[in-house]
Amino acid sequence: MTDKSPLDIQTPPERDDDGFEPRPELLARIDAAVAEGEREELNALLEPMHGADIADVIERLAPARRRMFLDLYSGEIDGEILSEIDESIRDEVIEQLPRDVLADAVREMDSDDVVNLVEDMDEPERARILAALDATDRAAVQQSLTYPEYSAGRLMQSEVVTAPEHWTVGEAIDFLRNEEWLPEQFYHVILVDPRRHPIGYVALGRLLSSRRDAALRDLGEDSFRTISALAEEGDVAYVFNQYHLISAPVVDADDRLVGVITIDDAMAVLDEEHEEDILRLAGVSDESHVSDGPVTTARQRLPWLVINLFTASLSALVISQFEDTITALVALAALMPIVASTGGIAGTQSLAVAVRALATRDLNRSNARRVVLRELGAGMLNGAGLALILGLAGTLIFGDPRLGLVLGLAMIVNQIVAALGGVLVPLTLNKLGLDPALASGTFVTTMTDVMGFFAFLGLATVILL
Amino acid sequence: MTDKSPLDIQTPPERDDDGFEPRPELLARIDAAVAEGEREELNALLEPMHGADIADVIERLAPARRRMFLDLYSGEIDGEILSEIDESIRDEVIEQLPRDVLADAVREMDSDDVVNLVEDMDEPERARILAALDATDRAAVQQSLTYPEYSAGRLMQSEVVTAPEHWTVGEAIDFLRNEEWLPEQFYHVILVDPRRHPIGYVALGRLLSSRRDAALRDLGEDSFRTISALAEEGDVAYVFNQYHLISAPVVDADDRLVGVITIDDAMAVLDEEHEEDILRLAGVSDESHVSDGPVTTARQRLPWLVINLFTASLSALVISQFEDTITALVALAALMPIVASTGGIAGTQSLAVAVRALATRDLNRSNARRVVLRELGAGMLNGAGLALILGLAGTLIFGDPRLGLVLGLAMIVNQIVAALGGVLVPLTLNKLGLDPALASGTFVTTMTDVMGFFAFLGLATVILL
Repeated sequence: MTDKSPLDIQTPPERDDDGFEPRPELLARIDAAVAEGEREELNALLEPMHGADIADVIERLAPARRRMFLDLYSGEIDGEILSEIDESIRDEVIEQLPRDVLADAVREMDSDDVVNLVEDMDEPERARILAALDATDRAAVQQSLTYPEYSAGRLMQSEVVTAPEHWTVGEAIDFLRNEEWLPEQFYHVILVDPRRHPIGYVALGRLLSSRRDAALRDLGEDSFRTISALAEEGDVAYVFNQYHLISAPVVDADDRLVGVITIDDAMAVLDEEHEEDILRLAGVSDESHVSDGPVTTARQRLPWLVINLFTASLSALVISQFEDTITALVALAALMPIVASTGGIAGTQSLAVAVRALATRDLNRSNARRVVLRELGAGMLNGAGLALILGLAGTLIFGDPRLGLVLGLAMIVNQIVAALGGVLVPLTLNKLGLDPALASGTFVTTMTDVMGFFAFLGLATVILL
Repeated sequence: MTDKSPLDIQTPPERDDDGFEPRPELLARIDAAVAEGEREELNALLEPMHGADIADVIERLAPARRRMFLDLYSGEIDGEILSEIDESIRDEVIEQLPRDVLADAVREMDSDDVVNLVEDMDEPERARILAALDATDRAAVQQSLTYPEYSAGRLMQSEVVTAPEHWTVGEAIDFLRNEEWLPEQFYHVILVDPRRHPIGYVALGRLLSSRRDAALRDLGEDSFRTISALAEEGDVAYVFNQYHLISAPVVDADDRLVGVITIDDAMAVLDEEHEEDILRLAGVSDESHVSDGPVTTARQRLPWLVINLFTASLSALVISQFEDTITALVALAALMPIVASTGGIAGTQSLAVAVRALATRDLNRSNARRVVLRELGAGMLNGAGLALILGLAGTLIFGDPRLGLVLGLAMIVNQIVAALGGVLVPLTLNKLGLDPALASGTFVTTMTDVMGFFAFLGLATVILL
């Protein structure tokens, strides 16, 4: 009855001493079995594993080894494994699957997983996969596909358990007992009126613990809320996280029930959105995957590097205006990166906090002014503190209090620019309806570089020469 | 029966045109009601709102306004609101709550929420809160507190629904119907042997759809796995996300059932871990909150800024070794930040990808070597591409192909350093058992700054002078 995979977490030291993934020796054995073409050994190793873990194994194999793996194992790929395989290698895997294995796998999958599988496919390939489904399932998938990408409609599964609002607990239980078809996982019975408008839902725990003659409509949960099929998936994840929902009914424009979203899908969306934030902030395409090769990786990162080449030329242009100053006192060339780079760190700090707060909706119109003023205050305070340290150090090392003054003043100016830039850039992007993380560090560090060099060299020209 | 809060997401344009949070005008009205001391108006506005949204409102008020809010509303604070209030202002809120309101709120809360509330409190304050609980609940909270911070034992709730493995569906349903006490939310009945070892669980949907005479042990789910009370909460979140669990039994060292963790708690942990990653990478204390004032904010960010002051001095030291070179050709001072900053971007890209992949366990010992080689390859490719652009531009603008050569070569060297540093620093931290995100950008950008300046000025000295 239990399915304790080798990756199960039973005890805290389930990781290796080096902190890496559990049981790397198992992965090594799988790799060896593939290399030697030992089909039986491979099947025996994978047999106790969860589909999600098998999908991870497939993702981690080197591309050539992966093809060998599929030669041996493609007959065993089921719906669970297929729905867990990362998009980056999914096409590759599907190509190697025998037609009938693929058809069986697709038939096993929930409609939301099928949607996820086929939504990025070309029409002929998509049609071939949909042909494997029975008519009802195919219609459900096709309906989902009519909703925009990244909408609740794409995320929902159409398998829903409903009951008329006038039923009693006993009627509901009898219905569930006699129903041939039920989704694999469901946590609520959704109450609908005769026109299929959802009007509440009853948690299964509540249903089970109530008397048979209790009316379903009296057992509805407070947390009930419906989600528009057109809602953005990010909003869906927010609502699940904010209100601790387990599942939520999805409705069309006429408020009619079309599906249900469960929390595991919302959790996956939350995870993806975080990935987007962290990668975009760092200037990396959020299409990047651990299984990508060097050429793909290089191509994904090149755009922001080239952009930075141009923005960094701005810094060079600013510095070149002060060549006479640098010629007069060449130590300035050595000192100028200190002011600029400390500004870069402060800008990155402010930016990361703002992007995260916008993502969690902790930052919004109601408190934007206060947060901007807070950043201004923090920038002034840290600017003053850093100016004191750097100014004193500069004075002592170079024996010139005027150089200390230049360093200190430039630091204050740049810390303020960094703090404000870090919060105003993402707020502005957000106001324009763009992803605040799209700014990436490049915008803000260009700002702090340019301003750092300009303030430092400009003040040096005025005060020192 | 339904509780459609004003923040409900019914239709996609539920956000403002500016992309900010829903219904800011409602927040403005709440603020106005507080300012004018209109208790009834305030209650009327908050009455339809979910506790999580009320907690958000409290967090977003300016500190002075928050005290006024609590003067008016503290009598209405219930367990739901209290458990949703951010830690950063929780002490402040609790101080203003009348004793009996606090006691009532705590009694309403699940044991995991009480643990979360009291775990950071001093002993006398904690004792006062625990005194409000009845003996069973108090014992449950105290047991949880014996487990380490950030462990599954702290995350679990002790309210568990169990059944002996030999029961039938009918016996289980009769038991649930007659049981006075049941948790608010539960999704599985955990099957235990006579010594309270969990041996499987039955989803409620399965229970409901089975015949009364079916044996529970035949209905157990494949996804069953137990979690050690000592497991780290990050591992718990991983297991829930990886295996799409909804709830999981928690066991002590003797494999005895001590509690249950539900997916909403795991989702919250996942969210916190993401926050830690994004903030730590940017060099911000993960204790930072949107409600912090400027002084707290400045203090949280100062450490990495001061560290950067020292690491940036390394760059200054490197540059100062080449003062003769710069004096000979002052244009070098203007050009040197281009190589350094493009390296900084590349290092940040590589770092963010590695930190994220380590967090999702997509990067581990089994593929570390391949990923490092991938980064090396990508660094060489992008280095070559950027070198070509920058080298040509330098040659054309300054009319000196040797300057173009210096720019290009320095760029290649620094891109390789950046790509390798970005992945090796977090891998090393991880190997040492530290959080890979602790590196923050500062380490890597110092590396790329120092190497960028050194390669550029060193090559210039050799080739140009």
